[in-house]
Parts: sequence; structure tokens; C-alpha cells
Amino acid sequence: MNTLGVLFRLTTFGESHGVALGSIIDGCPAGVPLTREHIQAALDRRRPGQSAITTARAEADQVEILSGVFEDKTLGTPIAAIVRNTNQRSQDYDKLKSEDRPGHADAVWRERYKHRDHRGGGRTSGRETLCRVIGGAIAEAYLARDLPQVRTVGWVSQVGDLVAAVPPAGVTRAQVDEHATRCADPAIREEMSRRILAAKEAGDSLGGSIDIRVEGLPVGLGEPIFGKLKALIAQALGSVGAVTGVVWGPPDLMERIAEPGKIFHSKKEMYGGIQGGLANGEPMQVRAYFKPPATLAEHAKGGRHDPCIMPRAVPVLEAMVSLVIADLVLQMNAFPHTA
Amino acid sequence: MNTLGVLFRLTTFGESHGVALGSIIDGCPAGVPLTREHIQAALDRRRPGQSAITTARAEADQVEILSGVFEDKTLGTPIAAIVRNTNQRSQDYDKLKSEDRPGHADAVWRERYKHRDHRGGGRTSGRETLCRVIGGAIAEAYLARDLPQVRTVGWVSQVGDLVAAVPPAGVTRAQVDEHATRCADPAIREEMSRRILAAKEAGDSLGGSIDIRVEGLPVGLGEPIFGKLKALIAQALGSVGAVTGVVWGPPDLMERIAEPGKIFHSKKEMYGGIQGGLANGEPMQVRAYFKPPATLAEHAKGGRHDPCIMPRAVPVLEAMVSLVIADLVLQMNAFPHTA
Amino acid sequence: MNTLGVLFRLTTFGESHGVALGSIIDGCPAGVPLTREHIQAALDRRRPGQSAITTARAEADQVEILSGVFEDKTLGTPIAAIVRNTNQRSQDYDKLKSEDRPGHADAVWRERYKHRDHRGGGRTSGRETLCRVIGGAIAEAYLARDLPQVRTVGWVSQVGDLVAAVPPAGVTRAQVDEHATRCADPAIREEMSRRILAAKEAGDSLGGSIDIRVEGLPVGLGEPIFGKLKALIAQALGSVGAVTGVVWGPPDLMERIAEPGKIFHSKKEMYGGIQGGLANGEPMQVRAYFKPPATLAEHAKGGRHDPCIMPRAVPVLEAMVSLVIADLVLQMNAFPHTA
Amino acid sequence: MNTLGVLFRLTTFGESHGVALGSIIDGCPAGVPLTREHIQAALDRRRPGQSAITTARAEADQVEILSGVFEDKTLGTPIAAIVRNTNQRSQDYDKLKSEDRPGHADAVWRERYKHRDHRGGGRTSGRETLCRVIGGAIAEAYLARDLPQVRTVGWVSQVGDLVAAVPPAGVTRAQVDEHATRCADPAIREEMSRRILAAKEAGDSLGGSIDIRVEGLPVGLGEPIFGKLKALIAQALGSVGAVTGVVWGPPDLMERIAEPGKIFHSKKEMYGGIQGGLANGEPMQVRAYFKPPATLAEHAKGGRHDPCIMPRAVPVLEAMVSLVIADLVLQMNAFPHTA
Repeated sequence: MNTLGVLFRLTTFGESHGVALGSIIDGCPAGVPLTREHIQAALDRRRPGQSAITTARAEADQVEILSGVFEDKTLGTPIAAIVRNTNQRSQDYDKLKSEDRPGHADAVWRERYKHRDHRGGGRTSGRETLCRVIGGAIAEAYLARDLPQVRTVGWVSQVGDLVAAVPPAGVTRAQVDEHATRCADPAIREEMSRRILAAKEAGDSLGGSIDIRVEGLPVGLGEPIFGKLKALIAQALGSVGAVTGVVWGPPDLMERIAEPGKIFHSKKEMYGGIQGGLANGEPMQVRAYFKPPATLAEHAKGGRHDPCIMPRAVPVLEAMVSLVIADLVLQMNAFPHTA
Repeated sequence: MNTLGVLFRLTTFGESHGVALGSIIDGCPAGVPLTREHIQAALDRRRPGQSAITTARAEADQVEILSGVFEDKTLGTPIAAIVRNTNQRSQDYDKLKSEDRPGHADAVWRERYKHRDHRGGGRTSGRETLCRVIGGAIAEAYLARDLPQVRTVGWVSQVGDLVAAVPPAGVTRAQVDEHATRCADPAIREEMSRRILAAKEAGDSLGGSIDIRVEGLPVGLGEPIFGKLKALIAQALGSVGAVTGVVWGPPDLMERIAEPGKIFHSKKEMYGGIQGGLANGEPMQVRAYFKPPATLAEHAKGGRHDPCIMPRAVPVLEAMVSLVIADLVLQMNAFPHTA
Repeated sequence: MNTLGVLFRLTTFGESHGVALGSIIDGCPAGVPLTREHIQAALDRRRPGQSAITTARAEADQVEILSGVFEDKTLGTPIAAIVRNTNQRSQDYDKLKSEDRPGHADAVWRERYKHRDHRGGGRTSGRETLCRVIGGAIAEAYLARDLPQVRTVGWVSQVGDLVAAVPPAGVTRAQVDEHATRCADPAIREEMSRRILAAKEAGDSLGGSIDIRVEGLPVGLGEPIFGKLKALIAQALGSVGAVTGVVWGPPDLMERIAEPGKIFHSKKEMYGGIQGGLANGEPMQVRAYFKPPATLAEHAKGGRHDPCIMPRAVPVLEAMVSLVIADLVLQMNAFPHTA
Repeated sequence: MNTLGVLFRLTTFGESHGVALGSIIDGCPAGVPLTREHIQAALDRRRPGQSAITTARAEADQVEILSGVFEDKTLGTPIAAIVRNTNQRSQDYDKLKSEDRPGHADAVWRERYKHRDHRGGGRTSGRETLCRVIGGAIAEAYLARDLPQVRTVGWVSQVGDLVAAVPPAGVTRAQVDEHATRCADPAIREEMSRRILAAKEAGDSLGGSIDIRVEGLPVGLGEPIFGKLKALIAQALGSVGAVTGVVWGPPDLMERIAEPGKIFHSKKEMYGGIQGGLANGEPMQVRAYFKPPATLAEHAKGGRHDPCIMPRAVPVLEAMVSLVIADLVLQMNAFPHTA
């Protein structure tokens, strides 16, 4: 089940140490402006090696579009785009042939699939998320044409026990990207960097959370009952490896949830932009919790993994949200309801 | 999109004030023992009016099986089951013809669908969840035949700021059902009842959380990438109206998530029974957060709604989990992997 | 897999000798005028016992709408409609408990499903097609609102070796329905009746063909590659029990197919209204071939089956075509292509 | 809708004059022996330029596997394979920028999609079928492991008015491939070649039919109601561009269909291996009719198209049948029916 979506559909393929990874978007309407550079720019935001706080692996991650685009506009046919694996260094992994990595899903995968590529995580590798970023870039290109008012911004809201305190309304991607932590709160960014570096040196790792805010969603977006906006967002974010929780609502939802209904419902942002499973016209607000990555063993071996994957996961989650929105927009287009 | 699942598929239909609600299960194998009484017993667990702390509406909720069962065993054909609405009392709702209920999704639904049944929530009503319970009862009948070791138990773990402290391992459905709160912690059950009754009298409502634990899942259950066990659980639980968050992991996950990776990963239950998106053989542990229901206005009018829906939501969430498991078991059956 | 369609989706259920048969249409837009009488009228066209040439079974086939319609307009929610089985006469079938009916699929079904309802064909019974007629009636209600220019007409074009010779352009449903054979050619209708009656008396049966013509399809209807108009029509018609062949093109296609391309392509009607898998704006023309039904044994036993099912199959095939068109229209709505 | 199948799913992409065409197979079990050479051999059977009677285009059509295979065995992950377009010669097509090719779907496609690649047929090109052959080769690799008794053989049974008369039972792929016409009847092969060459010289084209026979299908294969074996075969074959009809049954079905039921049903091969929509254990027999291709204009321009595409279409149809079978086998695996 490597396909997501009903009409705007992403299919992903590729193992971390295979020939290439890639994505097919089937269902992007024709005539959407789309260039290789647009997709590449999205991939560059996810790319490792952007700063001292991420993995040292220098992945080229150059995308090639194989189909679905002609004269820089989509054809309405499937858009295939691939990234070849150039830095496989599989010799690093020879020792893994006979042993599964502790804390990884290797053993579970082997039990299920019997035959697996011992050189890395295969499809459970974080590298698989680049396929989602490709899909998200195409979804955003489509939304930019038909729903330019939709704005999706994600940011790191917690690392370890360090929590951002910033009003979500004003955050922009440019502001988020200006710091390697992708934390939206300028007051704690530097401390966040220090902690991540300290964890890296200590061979340790850190979890936390990412907040996502979407403005401009059309009222009513979402498909009852099992295609509710919040259900699909939950599936999409929950499909990302390290995500261990998804909550809809304001940034302080988890504290407010224990409050009596009278207080809770007195603030309209408590709905997180969703009522009855459908977008209610207010900004959508969602948070994904991340567990600390299980990369300890590798780190000790000269490690090429991130002590804190959240800065790089921000564009991945934004991509997942954009994919869900694009799919629901097409479904909304499909049904001409009348009174 | 009123269908959930790939092979074991639930389709639900019915409005809260229409003729009937019902479910189709398409994909249940033939030969599974199934009776009307089995489904009815599941519905009775969800039924309102079971105690002083739930709504006073006395819904009969008698299920009728229309197809798919012969001589008390499934035929492998679609199983249709319906519940007729007997207590419509639509005169209560006449005043709603021209006004949407505050805090409800009425306005959003009207904006999207233009034409709606003003007599109630329609498909956004909590009453829709009885369709899920029907589906879940059939899923459990199938699992009881082919995977009898699978045990799914849910319980109320928080109401307002009152939090249960109980080791999940020993909780059983019988123990949970013996108290109207469906709280697993005997030490706080009575206080929980009192608070719910107090909220009811005050015209207020309470949120909280439900914990679900599943033992006996086969190792490897789940379909990468977008059909991961945790992604589908998130979609299934997130599709329930009042659910505002889903987290996988131990009961104290939200506190532990800020801990360094070394500490976090030292406890295997931190994985919540899922690695790489697949069941890892340990008990699966998941929590759903509920916002307090928006029933204040109705209460003042002589109210027939629950101040705290979680006790009744326990069998609904168990049903959703069982449906996801049954679907993934069939998918696992389908693919004969070899080394 | 009892569901057809991507957006306008029909799910059917019910065995020939169970409690009820029925259909869910999920995906009909809100605001479509729809009454019980509209669906009933469609069912009445398919009903047996309409004349001497069909089975003597007097099936009441009264439809009840359970959901999805309010004040005679669709709600945009799933429309459930059922027909209860009133004339089960299962005592007729007791002798079948230990023997499969020759020429029927009983043995194959038993081999696959192990447990089956011996009282009749179950889901392989022709009675299952009433579910399709319900779905088709709803599809036509939708098309009548949004694409009133679409006209779907089917007629019996061959019975045994008696072949109709009539230009398709002028045929109307009213004209077809005025004769029990539903043959569009007045010149052979009476002879056709005589042959069907003769077969009935002889305990024999007759095959032949049905032609369907659809005017008014929007140019471009269809979804490449596997959702091409002709591929989906083939699946939809091929899913009807007795259909043994589907061809697209003019009524004399099978003779013309052997002609050189220059001659063939000189007549635009050779395309049957489809090019590149998409509707090309010309009337769509398709034919379904039927094998003679395997009802010989039953006939000898006092028979309640049709010697020639095609007159009653006309509304079934029209329904299947309308369902495919409605689904493709919604998909066409979904994708806003631009230059 | 460029995806076919429920569990063994083919997604195709690529335009005739784009960078590459390719396929993703998602759902092939792990551990299936699969090499690049196996897929290449299948593509070579479809490749043009194999003899004087096909197009002169020398397409290299070298396949590259990008994912899903490790150490010559499938991983259970999506298998992506591509073929780069090397012989684009787009200068030939510059004149087409402002004119649609007569007899082609260019105008219909443009009306639907607004933006199209004028350099060729894009997705309506016969070149798209190579993606299906890739998928079929993988399906056959899977079937060879788990159901080695399944044998799928197709052959040209008619060209123009020249009709093969050969008992289907003994035909093998080796025998079919030994002649450029892929006609199974040695008595007419040479005459068939002559007619195709004559058509080529005359700038004309020829239609006809292909027969396919499948032995060894497990009893009960197929998913009622809309996933019946014959419904899915019809969709799969009907999705191939030039196919204008599909019939199930013996080679002389079209003549026999007019016979009375008593005679018809006296021969068990009349069922074409399918009863109640499911495989009945007898060899499955199906025929696809082809209209003559609309390549006249191009021929006059120095033509690179086939006067008769059926010899090359044989492996394409075999691939489609194998894909349907593989998908249905996985579905059959999924459902453990018991008495």
C-alpha cells in the first residue's frame, strides 16, 4: 500500500540503498506550471548536511522528471520523478548482513518479508521521505494555481523539554527556514541548537514536536466519514516513521483538553479549524509528536544519522499536509452539491 | 467516502433522524460464526441510557441482519445490518430548521452540502458511531475464528483533569464494563462519576482520553508505507467525531517524549507495539484524546446529550481498532512472502 | 468486491433467498431530486412476470429508501435502499441441499466459499441485478440534473438467430418498452415473442444480444489508462452474469471489423463514440452478447425462470452504463485542466 | 486512473515522446525470483522492428529496474522499472504542433486536457503498452513461483477476413513466436504475412482478433460481483487502445451464441472456463477484437507505424491477463473461507 489519496494520488518507491527512489503523482490536473527546479527546491529543504546539527551525509538528491510535464506545465498524465542514490557506501553496512540494528525495525521487517536488503532501512529508512517531498511539491504547485490563498507552514515547536512559545498566526516559511533548527521561536533557537549538538556529541538523540498551520482552506473541505480532514491528516502524518502522536487544535490543546466544555468551546480556535471533520474556515492547526530517533548504535560507529530529525522533518510534514489538501480539493470539485 | 478498509471493508449509511442507520461489511470470509445476538450485544455496550451519567435517550437500537449470514455463519458475501430509528422525536428539532446549533458542525455541513436534514446532526451525529460498532462486532467475530489470541481492550483513562493510574497489562473488558465510567482505575471511578454528574447538572461537559491495548497481534502486521498499522489506527480513530488526538506508546508517552533517546529506547514498551509501522509482537498501546462535547445549548433545553461521551465511546474505538486489524490480517494473508 | 466506481460508488448486497437485497450509492451529490417512486419505476421495468414471455415469479420488489434522501432530495450522504424478499418459497429448493444445479455456478461457488445458501443462486442469482437497477436509477437522477442531454437507450437486438435491423439513432425507451420483447425492430417483434414462447414450452432457452446507445456524452469523458470509458463499460457489462461478450462500435461492427482500415475509418460511427478511450462527442454505441440461460432443469420442475432473459436485462444494462457515466462525470468535474 | 488492480497493482507512466516510460508494481510478494533479463525478454517480444511486417522504428526499449529487487529476488516493496525514449525524432512531429492527426484521439485528448504534447500520441500511443508488458512480466514471475501450472498463451486468430482454424488446446508460446504473424494456424500464416505486407505497401491497415487461452487457473478465482474474472478481463483488455470487443467462450462462440440453450450448454467449453464469474477449473478462453489502426496518414509520410498491430499486441494482451490473474490470486489468498 504505497499509494496515498483518492484522486490526487502519490505512489512512492525505492529503497535507501537501491538504485533510485521516486514518486508518481497520478491525478494532477493539466496545465499546472511545474519545473524540475521547483521540486528540487523542495528536496533541498529536506536534504541532510545543511548544517552542523544534521547528519553529515552529503546526499546529492538531484531529481529528474521522467513524465507528465511538457513545456514546464503538467499534462494531466502521471508525473514520475526520481532521485538516484549516489552515495551508497554499502561497505559500511556489510557488518549488518547478519545482525539487525537495535532499535530499528529491521527484525520486524525481516520477520514479515523474509527477504530484505541488509544494507540499510530499505523502505523504513528516513530517506524514503524524499518521495513524499516530491509529491508535496507537486501538490503545492497545483494548489498555487487553483487555491493560492492556501498557506501551509510547519515549524519545530519542541525539542527535548525545550518548548517554543510563539503565536502561530504570524509564522512564515521564510522565517522558519532562516534557522537550522526550524524552530519558530527566536528566543530558544540558539539553546535548541546547543542541545542538539550536545546530544550529537554524547551519542544521544532528541524527540519533540512539529506544529503545522494551514490558512485559507475552503469551508467544508473533507469527506465524511472516513475521509474527514482530520482522519486523513492523521493517517498522512502517522505514516511518517518517527511520528508517535497527532493532535488537532491549538498549540496548548493538551493542557486545555482537561478544561470543562464551557471554557473549552468559548474559544473558537479550540476546533483547530475543523468541525464535523470538515474545514470550518478558520486556520487549521495540527501538531505531530516525534520520539527520539534510534540512532545511538550508528552514532558510536562514526554515525551518519541525525540526533534530532525534526528540523528536516518539517518539509516532510508540510508535504504530507499539502498532499491531503490537494486530494480533498479535487474531491470537493467533483461533487456539485445544491440546495 | 463512507467506506473504510481495503479487503475487510466497512461502508456505513444513515442519518440520525432518518429511517435507519446501517453497515455493510464486504470482505468477511465465509464460515465465520455470526449471530444477530453477537452484534446486538456489541450495540448494547454503546447504547445510551445505561446509567445516570449518560444521555437519557432510550434508543432501542435493535439490529437486523439483511444479508451475508446463513445458518448462523457468514457466506463470504456482503453482510448488511441495519438499526431503525424509532425515537425520532423530530418535533424537538423543529426550532432548528432555521438556526444551526452553536458548537456543532451544522453550519459547516450546510455550507458544503447546501441541503441538510435540520432535525439533527445527520451524519455528524454521534449516533453514526453505531454503524462502526456493527462493523467492529463482525471484525471481532472474524478475528475470534482466525486469531483468537488477539485481545482488544479499551478504557477511559482521563476525565477532565482526573487521570487513571493503572498498569495496562491486566485490564479486561469485563473489568472495564463493571463500572458506568468504563474507567480502569478502581481508585478514581467513583470520583469520576461524581464529576460527570456534577457537569451534567451544571450544563457543562468534560473531555479526557481513552486508552486501548491490543495483545496478540501477529508480528509484521501493517502495510508500508501509507497502510502502516499506526497510520491506519490514526485514520480510524481520527474519524470519530470527538477525537482530537491520537498517540501511540505507553500511557506516560507524552511525559517521556521529552526524554533523551538513550533513556527512551531503553524501555521496549516505548514503541507501543509498533516498529517501522508494523506490529512488533509486543502489545499495541494507543491513546485517543477527546475534547469536551459541545452540548451546552441542548442541555439547557432539557438536553438529551451526554456530558461526557467517553464511557460510551470505548466500544466505538475498540470497534475501529478491530476493523483495522481485520483488514490488515486479510492483507497479510494475501501476500506469501518468502526468503 | 461488491463495490463499483471511484466517486459515484455502488455497493450491493443480498442473496436471492435471504432477508433482503439492496444497494448503497455513496457519492451522489446533494440536492438531486429523488423519490421512492423514481427508483420503483426503474425496478418495475426489470420485474419478472410482466408478460407471458418472462418467468411466472411474481416478485413484489417494493423498494424502501433508508437513508440519504430528505424532503425528496439527496443529502450528499450514502443512499441506502432495500427490497425485501417476500416470495422465498424455499421449500421448492430443499431438494437442492445436497445437489448443485447443473449448468449453474453452484459447484464453483461452493468450492470457493465452502459455505453457501443452497436455496438458490445467492449472489449469482439474476435477482442480484435489481441492486444494480436501484443504483442506475439514482445515477440517472443525478445525470438528469447535471447532464440532461445524456440519453441512454438499450434494446434487444438479437434473439437466437433472429436479428434486428433498425437504425440506432431514433430508438427511444418508450418505443422499446411498448413490446414485451424490448426489441427495437417492429418487423420481428412478434416472431421473437413466438420463438421465446416456443422455447419456454420446449424447456429450452435462447441467447442473443442487447444494443445500447448513449447520446449527449461530454467530449473527453473517461479516465486514461485503466479507467477508459470503454474499459469501464466492459467491466460493468461483463459483471452481469449472462453477458458473454462486449463490443464497441456500430451495430454491424463484427462484420466490418474485417474490412481494410481505409474503409473502416471512412465512417466516423466506426469509433462507437470513443477515441483514445474517451468519449468523442458522437453517440456511444455498445453491444452485449448473452448466452442462453442454463435453466433447463428448473423448467422441467415447474420452472420459474426465463427462457430468454434479455428483455428484462435491458434496464439492467442501461443501469450499468448510467453508473459508469455518472462516476466518470464526477471524475471529470474533479480535474480542472487548463491549457 | 493509471493504476490497475487491488493488491497486485500496476501503475504506469510516460508519454511516447517524453523522457521515459515505466511501471510500478506494488504488491508483488517478497522472494519472487526476478531479473532485468526476464523483463527485457518480455519487452523484446513486443518490440517493433522484429520483422518486415511491423513498423520500422528501431526502439531500443532497454529496461532498467530502479527498486524492489535485491539479489535477483523481489523485496515485497514497489518494483519500479523504466524504459528511456531514445529515438524521439521529434522533428518529424513539428508539423503536428498545429494539426491533430486524423483518425487519432488527438482532438479528443486536447478537448479534455487542454495542454498536450503535440509530438505524438502521449499516453494514447501504442508505446504506452510497453508499461503493461513490464507489469505482466512481473506478474508472470510471481505466478511462476506460486502457481506454476498457470499457462497463458495468446495468438492472432484473425487478420482481415482471414481466420485461423486451430484447436486452442495445443497452442504454445514457442509455436506462436516462431512466425512473425503470431498466428497459431500454420496453414494461413504465409498468406497472412502477404496480406499485411500488401496493406503496408497500399498505405492501408488491417484489424482482426487475438485469442487467449489460460490453463491451470484455480477453481473459484474471481471476486463477485464487480471483480468477476470476466469483468476484470474485460476491463483489462478493453483498456488496450485498439481493442474494440471482448468475448469469453470457445473460438466459435459468436456463431454458437444463436443456438438454443440445450445445445449450447451441452458442451462444457461453452462456459469459456468461467461460471458465476469465477474460474471453473476448465481452461479460460477469451477473444479480443481489434479494429484496423488509423495510421494511414503517417504511412504516406514515410510511416513508422504498423499496418497490423496484432502480432505485437499478443504479448500485451497476455500481460493484461497475467496482471488480472495475479491480482485475483492474491485476493483469493486473502480470504480464508471455511464451511
